[in-house]
Amino acid sequence: MNNIIDLFDSTLRDGSQGEGISFSVEDKVKIVLALDTLGVKYIEAGNPGSNPKDLEFFQRTRDLKLKHAKLVSFGSTRRKNIAASEDANLASLIASKTEITSIFGKSWDFHVTDIIKTSLGENLQMIEDSVRFVCDSGSEVFYDAEHFFDGYLANPSYAMETLKAALRGGATTLVLCDTRGGTLSETVGSITREVGELLPNIPLGIHTHDDIGCAVASSIAAVQAGAVQVQGTLLGFGERCGNACLFSVAGILSAKMGYDCLNGQSLEQLTGISRKVAEISNVRIPHTAPFIGVSAFAHKGGMHIDGVGKSPSSFEHIDPTSVGNERRLLMSEVAGRALMLKRIHKVAPELDKDNPLTISLMEELKKLEAEGYQFEGAESSFDLVIRRHLKLYRPFFTLVHYQTIGSSPYLDPLSDASHAAVVKVKVKGESAITAAEGEGPVNALDQALRKVLEQFYPTLKSVHLTDYKVRVLDTAGATASKVRVLIDSTDGESTWSTIGVSKDIIEASWLALSDSIEYKLIADGIVPSDDSN
Amino acid sequence: MNNIIDLFDSTLRDGSQGEGISFSVEDKVKIVLALDTLGVKYIEAGNPGSNPKDLEFFQRTRDLKLKHAKLVSFGSTRRKNIAASEDANLASLIASKTEITSIFGKSWDFHVTDIIKTSLGENLQMIEDSVRFVCDSGSEVFYDAEHFFDGYLANPSYAMETLKAALRGGATTLVLCDTRGGTLSETVGSITREVGELLPNIPLGIHTHDDIGCAVASSIAAVQAGAVQVQGTLLGFGERCGNACLFSVAGILSAKMGYDCLNGQSLEQLTGISRKVAEISNVRIPHTAPFIGVSAFAHKGGMHIDGVGKSPSSFEHIDPTSVGNERRLLMSEVAGRALMLKRIHKVAPELDKDNPLTISLMEELKKLEAEGYQFEGAESSFDLVIRRHLKLYRPFFTLVHYQTIGSSPYLDPLSDASHAAVVKVKVKGESAITAAEGEGPVNALDQALRKVLEQFYPTLKSVHLTDYKVRVLDTAGATASKVRVLIDSTDGESTWSTIGVSKDIIEASWLALSDSIEYKLIADGIVPSDDSN
Repeated sequence: MNNIIDLFDSTLRDGSQGEGISFSVEDKVKIVLALDTLGVKYIEAGNPGSNPKDLEFFQRTRDLKLKHAKLVSFGSTRRKNIAASEDANLASLIASKTEITSIFGKSWDFHVTDIIKTSLGENLQMIEDSVRFVCDSGSEVFYDAEHFFDGYLANPSYAMETLKAALRGGATTLVLCDTRGGTLSETVGSITREVGELLPNIPLGIHTHDDIGCAVASSIAAVQAGAVQVQGTLLGFGERCGNACLFSVAGILSAKMGYDCLNGQSLEQLTGISRKVAEISNVRIPHTAPFIGVSAFAHKGGMHIDGVGKSPSSFEHIDPTSVGNERRLLMSEVAGRALMLKRIHKVAPELDKDNPLTISLMEELKKLEAEGYQFEGAESSFDLVIRRHLKLYRPFFTLVHYQTIGSSPYLDPLSDASHAAVVKVKVKGESAITAAEGEGPVNALDQALRKVLEQFYPTLKSVHLTDYKVRVLDTAGATASKVRVLIDSTDGESTWSTIGVSKDIIEASWLALSDSIEYKLIADGIVPSDDSN
Repeated sequence: MNNIIDLFDSTLRDGSQGEGISFSVEDKVKIVLALDTLGVKYIEAGNPGSNPKDLEFFQRTRDLKLKHAKLVSFGSTRRKNIAASEDANLASLIASKTEITSIFGKSWDFHVTDIIKTSLGENLQMIEDSVRFVCDSGSEVFYDAEHFFDGYLANPSYAMETLKAALRGGATTLVLCDTRGGTLSETVGSITREVGELLPNIPLGIHTHDDIGCAVASSIAAVQAGAVQVQGTLLGFGERCGNACLFSVAGILSAKMGYDCLNGQSLEQLTGISRKVAEISNVRIPHTAPFIGVSAFAHKGGMHIDGVGKSPSSFEHIDPTSVGNERRLLMSEVAGRALMLKRIHKVAPELDKDNPLTISLMEELKKLEAEGYQFEGAESSFDLVIRRHLKLYRPFFTLVHYQTIGSSPYLDPLSDASHAAVVKVKVKGESAITAAEGEGPVNALDQALRKVLEQFYPTLKSVHLTDYKVRVLDTAGATASKVRVLIDSTDGESTWSTIGVSKDIIEASWLALSDSIEYKLIADGIVPSDDSN
């Protein structure tokens, strides 16, 4: 058995047809490089016939030194009733000068007669002519059989004729597409197998959409039926419900089925690259995303946490590190006390589970959770809750007051800022007040707070925020709703996450900002003086 | 062929083991009622042995009048080496007095020997005893064969013995669980078929997890192999990557396979109920969610929009209204000009696609999109962009200045507010200034803006906001990053959505708020006077 499956990524083409997805040229270059690092073999990077910017992109990226990947341009068969050489789309494809070209055509008789409105014979000729024309230009052609499964179910002999037309034209790979995404996985598998039997020794690809939530499973079913190329997009971006998520496909093919689908590159890059791509694309990876999500190996039920403690494989189908992810044990009501106790022991090793302090700490946690706190992503704030509750905590500073002033037009017309913030704190018996400006009230407050504290705690100079997230809770109250602010901070070496919840976004941000600073000072082993209060 | 498949929902049990998911008692009651309305047959509502609050919940909900659904309590087999009658978990199950009880036990020899650390024989006895004990109390028992697929692959004869032990005890349905979620769908199907052949005429259920993104497909594969009950959770909540999403399962079984899985209730409720459940659970439905997501029937590629215009089935696998969802045609670069022209024609019917104004409007749209605007969810703001660009727009008011003042402690210690806002506007040559307070700066600004304008435009009295969303763009800049604010407004009859983008959350909110007001005034046919500027 040949143990290689080729991955074909269409993030920059089909993926950009997803709602809310749009890429700048710089984004596109970054994504090409990320895909190449991952070990993906083919990158479909644009549709130069429908988007002139894509042609530009191909011209610009021709000299990119890629280690594994080959760029592919994508376009339609020629228009009806003209010669291939007169077709502007095909001319753009040739002008993009990619080593490989994807040409898509119609497999479903209904699309031929009712959508492009031509004869079944002319459609076959369009396919054959277009593939031949592009092959003659020196590019290898993969033929995308659009709506293949719907077409095969409606009129199998015509659907097969379209594939044969592409082969006559010179296509080297036939890609069977579930364009509407509604075909059951078993059907995708059985039709792929039939095509393989009817056209032996022709490499088949599979291209699925997720309209019934089965795009990945259908891709795997096609591989089990003989397909050797899987098309998909990073994070499953794409038209409607999206395409097959290539991260999931790669995880299954490599970790569960033993295929090499990454040109020998390590699957351990999977999680890291997915997060990079999410950043470039400005989307959030669902925390439940298979293999790569932050919850993918997060255990919450008490029995699960217990089982994983005894043997990770009891509740994990693979080792999380094999895909670059990590195991997490979550604190919550469901998890029971064992895990919380572990966390408490990091701060106060002497407390046992029946200690009244432990019990009241559990109560406080529940109360905070009910208010909208969620410590699963803000473990540094959780440590501070423990310290405060156990009175192990002496604050490093006390807020006397803060004030934020926003105005439009801004007081200083030459400044980029729109807000000023004044912060007065008391540290070691001394008062200090300062002001700072920023783009927005939170930015101004963040600047002012660190400015006023740096004189007392110079170690804070290295701290800066790397992420700021706002989640509006119970949106029914609209602008008076509660908001949850999550902040990630770094000092260049370690990173930590803190949280604040309030109806006032400024106060919620303040809580998360001041927790961040307290956490850093504790981590650095700095001891506040007794009179800081 | 029997065309009924029973749905078994575990949102309140397995679902609550998902990261970030927690339900209050009120939430739980609402979800039970939503499931009953949907037509789900079984609702697993808690684990009374591990969580005393769940027992309380069963006692409290015993008198709920449900039309279709039966409540199910869930718990483990007895502990090793004690009598079933001495087991506290089983006692809680019986005390919850549900008509049906789910009892789970170990199918995988490795879990018996290495996790619960007992003999293979004692495990069989634990299963048989526990099922019999609960059956004897008068409850019907469904037996959940935990880790069945992993167990069957490791030691098929032992896995089958565990099922037979449950049958000896009196279980009426055997539920095969892919607890780690790592089994390929084809394997789930083939093992389910083998079990059905080994134990003919025993109803089988399927319970899958989504760790390789195939939970729904595996559930369907099991049904194709003979399973008659599908377990899952609403929106796929659950441990790690979650469980099979029951909305997707119901959509496929009903709309694609012709089963009745909703007790005769209409599938048209699917989208509405999913959004209600998301609200109760305080989660966002991924816009790409199959069947129910806002993008599930959203078309972006120009060719797709064209095809759907000719015949919706060209790019839609089902009619969106059959699941209570709707078709959307998205405006974007990819969509080409046809759709934008449609939108423009609503405002200016005389403009054609080659008009310089149309072309420059396209340019402006691209510029705004590059700045972070996304009109796909804010079509009212898009209409205003068109009107402004075509000079068809005369503003209803001009901002002279606004100022927001936030302070902690707040100036008025008796107020719930934390911010004050001052807004000065010019309307019809007249200036007006007012102030208002709010919980947070945006709330204060919203109050002040509507207060100052209501004297000129009394129709605004009926307007209020129903949703406020904040998205931090390019988070690398942390608190100085761009934010996108989306606002939904209503006047009690219609609703509209507007957008603002800025580095300053207050300014972004201001832009969305003032667009909302402008849009309402235009919709009401109010004509601003010439000198409003």
